[in-house]
Amino acid sequence: MRTPAQNGELALLLEVASTPKPGNVDRHRDLDDLRFEHFLAGAVGARDGLEMAATDSAIGPAFERAIEGMAAQEGDNTQFGALLLLVPLVRATRNDLSRSAVESVVEQTTVDDAAAFYRAFEHVDVFVPDPPADMAPLDVRRGSDAIPALEARELTLVDVMDRSVPGDDVAREWITGFERSFAAADRLETKSGPLPDRAAAVFLSLLADRPDTLVANRRDETTAREVSQRAAALVDRNAIATDRDAVETFATELVDRGINPGTTADITAAGLFIALERDTVEI
Amino acid sequence: MRTPAQNGELALLLEVASTPKPGNVDRHRDLDDLRFEHFLAGAVGARDGLEMAATDSAIGPAFERAIEGMAAQEGDNTQFGALLLLVPLVRATRNDLSRSAVESVVEQTTVDDAAAFYRAFEHVDVFVPDPPADMAPLDVRRGSDAIPALEARELTLVDVMDRSVPGDDVAREWITGFERSFAAADRLETKSGPLPDRAAAVFLSLLADRPDTLVANRRDETTAREVSQRAAALVDRNAIATDRDAVETFATELVDRGINPGTTADITAAGLFIALERDTVEI
Repeated sequence: MRTPAQNGELALLLEVASTPKPGNVDRHRDLDDLRFEHFLAGAVGARDGLEMAATDSAIGPAFERAIEGMAAQEGDNTQFGALLLLVPLVRATRNDLSRSAVESVVEQTTVDDAAAFYRAFEHVDVFVPDPPADMAPLDVRRGSDAIPALEARELTLVDVMDRSVPGDDVAREWITGFERSFAAADRLETKSGPLPDRAAAVFLSLLADRPDTLVANRRDETTAREVSQRAAALVDRNAIATDRDAVETFATELVDRGINPGTTADITAAGLFIALERDTVEI
Repeated sequence: MRTPAQNGELALLLEVASTPKPGNVDRHRDLDDLRFEHFLAGAVGARDGLEMAATDSAIGPAFERAIEGMAAQEGDNTQFGALLLLVPLVRATRNDLSRSAVESVVEQTTVDDAAAFYRAFEHVDVFVPDPPADMAPLDVRRGSDAIPALEARELTLVDVMDRSVPGDDVAREWITGFERSFAAADRLETKSGPLPDRAAAVFLSLLADRPDTLVANRRDETTAREVSQRAAALVDRNAIATDRDAVETFATELVDRGINPGTTADITAAGLFIALERDTVEI
């Protein structure tokens, strides 16, 4: 029987091992400067923060610790978004792991949690788009320099997430009761076969559902929509079962074009965690 | 900066991610009933035992805990031998991680440590050959039923290892001051490129040096020698750099024939740990 922190770490490892996961690092693909082993080290490093999330520690410091540990490898940012989902989910296991339990966790976050979230950006280089003008003092790239503005406006961590929606589908999970994370877990449970294969199929289905917000922010919305529509076409004809080569080709094409649907991978990791915790998937 | 327990877990993950690793599960190959994800879960589960090894816990109970955690996945035995090397190595980091430090660790093991080692076999199905007749009461497959015989003969854990040599090259590490584990670390440090690629090259060189004892025990010595000679031929012509296809073909052939040089993989993991601890390899 694994602990929630162990399941959190294992979810990160299973996510990166799942293949084909178009555009992302997976068991069969590296990016130029972000390799499979960076994700392995990132997951190992994140565990202490996940252990904190399972205890009485506040959510913000647990997240900051997870990011600091994750970033102790040369690939820099490997699992920032995934940990932003896993930390409240791990905490929610202290009751039952339900959507209402994790909603309650995020609703109880404080201004101090938000400050720790901002400090986390000092440990790692995360891609974020320019904020609107009135939010410039709260640009996460300012790190702890933004904390006074945060305190002046009395923004808690869930308030910060609320202001990142629409545009960031990791933040959207925080204000929708982790809707897509739980949907991903449900899908993992209804599929058969080895868990990484199921996770790859769920990744593709999530990508088909909604354009990936990291792609939209790094590239543009047109590209994000194109990628989502192509994933939907593959899902519609059940390509993973009937034409796996087409999915592999799509995966390699996105890597070659430098298009990385990282938000979709984050939600896949969250879904893996929920399914592991429910003990409804075997490994 | 990773802790010794984190480096121990990471060494297990990097070992299984290294490819091509002829005959074994690697980033690109699964066996029929032992898949990549089982090794991921095995590494996550082993961490608590590695944490114990880094503290005041006795070596035997730390090993038993590591095995119990490792075995909490459907592949059953994934990293038994590797953990038998990692646990004393993790303990040795409390001084400097040298051959004499780890020799001192194993020399201090007790009959109670040996009893815990026997109990570990109750958590997992490890392949071991039949012992000689006078050692039958101490057959590890008897698990804790063998403990009275162990106590009657006042055998410590290093005594048990001593009686497994020759024939088991994991046990041999215990009585040679971890000779090949440190040699593996030295080789990792002199190579260049991503760490998993280096580890695959070191694995092949270790296999070339000596026939794998797991292959000898599971199959026969002739097969073990043949595999080692073929590895040596590949190393002699620097095939990893000049004819990688030949190494990949050898890797797949051994998987197809069900020949798994697991002892060589165990020593590779130990070498990875030592190199990570010395901080002479980057990840």
